[in-house]
Amino acid sequence: MQPQDRLPGDTYSLDARIQRHFAKLTTLGVQPDGSISRIAYSDAESSAIAYIRAEGEAFGLSSRYDAVGNLVLSLPGNQPRRLLVGSHLDSVPRGGNYDGSAGIVAGLEALRDLTPEAEDFEAGIDLVVWRGEEYTFDAVYKGSAAAFGVAETHILFNTYEHQTLRDAIRSQGFSPDCIDDNRPTFSPQTIASIVGYYELHIEQGVRLERERKDLGIVTSIAGDRRYLIVLHGRFDHSGATPMGRAFRNDVNLTMAHIQTRADRLAEERRAQGHEFVQTVGVVNADPEVDRKYPDVHANSVTKVSGLGYFTLDIMGPDDDFLDTYSGEVHRLIWQTAKEFGVTANIEQTDRAGGVKALDAGLQQHLRQAIDSLGCSYLELPSGAGHDAALVAQVTRSDGSRIPVSMLFVPCRNGVSHSKEEYVAPEQMVKGTQALRDAMRTVALEGQTP
Amino acid sequence: MQPQDRLPGDTYSLDARIQRHFAKLTTLGVQPDGSISRIAYSDAESSAIAYIRAEGEAFGLSSRYDAVGNLVLSLPGNQPRRLLVGSHLDSVPRGGNYDGSAGIVAGLEALRDLTPEAEDFEAGIDLVVWRGEEYTFDAVYKGSAAAFGVAETHILFNTYEHQTLRDAIRSQGFSPDCIDDNRPTFSPQTIASIVGYYELHIEQGVRLERERKDLGIVTSIAGDRRYLIVLHGRFDHSGATPMGRAFRNDVNLTMAHIQTRADRLAEERRAQGHEFVQTVGVVNADPEVDRKYPDVHANSVTKVSGLGYFTLDIMGPDDDFLDTYSGEVHRLIWQTAKEFGVTANIEQTDRAGGVKALDAGLQQHLRQAIDSLGCSYLELPSGAGHDAALVAQVTRSDGSRIPVSMLFVPCRNGVSHSKEEYVAPEQMVKGTQALRDAMRTVALEGQTP
Repeated sequence: MQPQDRLPGDTYSLDARIQRHFAKLTTLGVQPDGSISRIAYSDAESSAIAYIRAEGEAFGLSSRYDAVGNLVLSLPGNQPRRLLVGSHLDSVPRGGNYDGSAGIVAGLEALRDLTPEAEDFEAGIDLVVWRGEEYTFDAVYKGSAAAFGVAETHILFNTYEHQTLRDAIRSQGFSPDCIDDNRPTFSPQTIASIVGYYELHIEQGVRLERERKDLGIVTSIAGDRRYLIVLHGRFDHSGATPMGRAFRNDVNLTMAHIQTRADRLAEERRAQGHEFVQTVGVVNADPEVDRKYPDVHANSVTKVSGLGYFTLDIMGPDDDFLDTYSGEVHRLIWQTAKEFGVTANIEQTDRAGGVKALDAGLQQHLRQAIDSLGCSYLELPSGAGHDAALVAQVTRSDGSRIPVSMLFVPCRNGVSHSKEEYVAPEQMVKGTQALRDAMRTVALEGQTP
Repeated sequence: MQPQDRLPGDTYSLDARIQRHFAKLTTLGVQPDGSISRIAYSDAESSAIAYIRAEGEAFGLSSRYDAVGNLVLSLPGNQPRRLLVGSHLDSVPRGGNYDGSAGIVAGLEALRDLTPEAEDFEAGIDLVVWRGEEYTFDAVYKGSAAAFGVAETHILFNTYEHQTLRDAIRSQGFSPDCIDDNRPTFSPQTIASIVGYYELHIEQGVRLERERKDLGIVTSIAGDRRYLIVLHGRFDHSGATPMGRAFRNDVNLTMAHIQTRADRLAEERRAQGHEFVQTVGVVNADPEVDRKYPDVHANSVTKVSGLGYFTLDIMGPDDDFLDTYSGEVHRLIWQTAKEFGVTANIEQTDRAGGVKALDAGLQQHLRQAIDSLGCSYLELPSGAGHDAALVAQVTRSDGSRIPVSMLFVPCRNGVSHSKEEYVAPEQMVKGTQALRDAMRTVALEGQTP
């Protein structure tokens, strides 16, 4: 343990402080199978945010909620310029305890370490807990988008387990009005004051682990295009209807061919050097979609399938390519469906922009901090989306962008969005120290390089 | 209309008599969308059987229920030798109004026409309404199998919508004891007395319609092999997990490849002359299976799929081929799963024997009856299974088999197991007349040729 890991008034190591938070958080939203469901605007998410708030206030941070319930915890001091560090505490349904939380825990403990130095800083530091980053209510980045006034109003009508996002926001004591009116919940002065944004996150991949690196400096962040594809064929008796397209309009077989062909197309484009991933995550397995298309339960062992649906998720940093490629896949879907006498309806359920290059200056501070700690690192793209991507795409009133940088910690076997999600304590310590030291440099300078 | 369609005491035409029954039956088990759910051992099935019983008793048939609730309606007279005509009144979930019912309605109205002649018959005629022919409670031919003592005891533990078959049988006032003890509900004398079995059924295919034939004489009946295949892979973050088998154990993609490969294998075998059909009817869309594998709902847009299941239905008349081919498909499933790093569990959910050739003598009577009526016909295999297949496979105590024959009526667009199921009234009349006239010949002779 480094001497700097012990501070006056706190006799616990950084490691122990971090693990205490995870031990608490793992009780909030825990499911019978040990997975975590801290859904956006659920009581579990609010409890986790309240816990972090109380912890921060206990060592001297001031706090405020914005209109939609994003939490801002600030170092003592009233510097007009602000460095932000943020992440989220919500999870996917039946996810894990580190996706999002790792960034909040690291940010909180970095601020604890920096509190004694706060009066020396040219720029203050705010830890922001964004609401609802994960894909629930058919939308990502719900809190950060609202903060900067770019949340789309229609998402308030989207539902999760029968509740609209509008009602969910209200249920936690906050107001959807800003989203309704396309107004940012952060004031123009606040947005103008941001000198930079850091986010620590679990890698959610295996590169750091396989290449035995302590940390990852993120070069780009994937955007996404998400679709729900619903196919209508014809229910027929399985035994009495001959095989073949002349007799059957078989939705299950059509979906299988679409999947294998789309997979081949993706591999071709990747072989041509395009950086992206494509996933069919759900086939007929989403109770929310089932309610919209109850005939999916008319499928049976003894029938040719007449109705089915699947989701398609395309992620990569290059928005132009994502749009072009999505068009290609859509044509493949329609053509394949037509071959089998099936109709396909494609609905876009999400679109998040990617970031091709993160801020070089903030990255350089991370590199120096990691080197000083004697840790190893890798520069790598983020295949997953993050609030950082939303922040990086904000255009401020003076036309400027917010400098954004991300730091990855390795997670075991690259697994995330699962109860198996796990980050080794020593990796959390290294990540928190690197984040802290890079932020100290920016805060002392008061601006990004 | 033929003069023979008007009988003393009945001023209605055969057509009108038939349509009155369908008009009543369509109200029993009707769903909000207009489909019919007359599930085995439901109140709806019992109501339909009670209706037919009352109708038959009204024109002079005697009636009895066997221990499991099969209804036997008998022409007046006590001839020791009996010709049986049967079918069923249950339906698949959200099925139609003609599958099964057509055979019962035709049998009932044929008996009404034959009642005045009953005393001249050497063999009496019994109309049997078999319970639960359709695939529910993970089993087919439930009533007919019980009648002949070949129902497997374990099916009593199978459930439909949380109720076991045992409880369902009891709920309708009957007893599962015979199935428990592997005893036939029909007495040895009854079984020995059967000189033949006729069943009229809707074709559930398009051949009669496409070839513009009035009726079909069935040459063979398909057996089935049914499987539930459950695949376990690994849930991973869709964006952060690179594509390809080195990184993903993707159940959805694996299921797609299994389906397309199994479809190709089936087409190869069919091209080699094997008569069968293969269907993947359900992919992740059976609420009963969902309850056993709740992790199927852990699939999401933003995850690589970690769990999924599908059903496989293989039907054809040749049991040896069905067994050989099933083995081939199982190896294909295991090999494909292994390629993708996924495990596949294959559970057999049903096995019904096929009948390669039906009785030539009973067929000949049908041919003569159809010719005399001036109707056209086609000889064709039945791709669907029927109680007739169960009856044809019974081995009696003296080693003999029951002669069995089936007659098809065309159904619109070949559609069945669907609310779109429909038989034109004039086709029902022709089928009923042919059935009646063939039965008259057998009954007068008192034995099959």
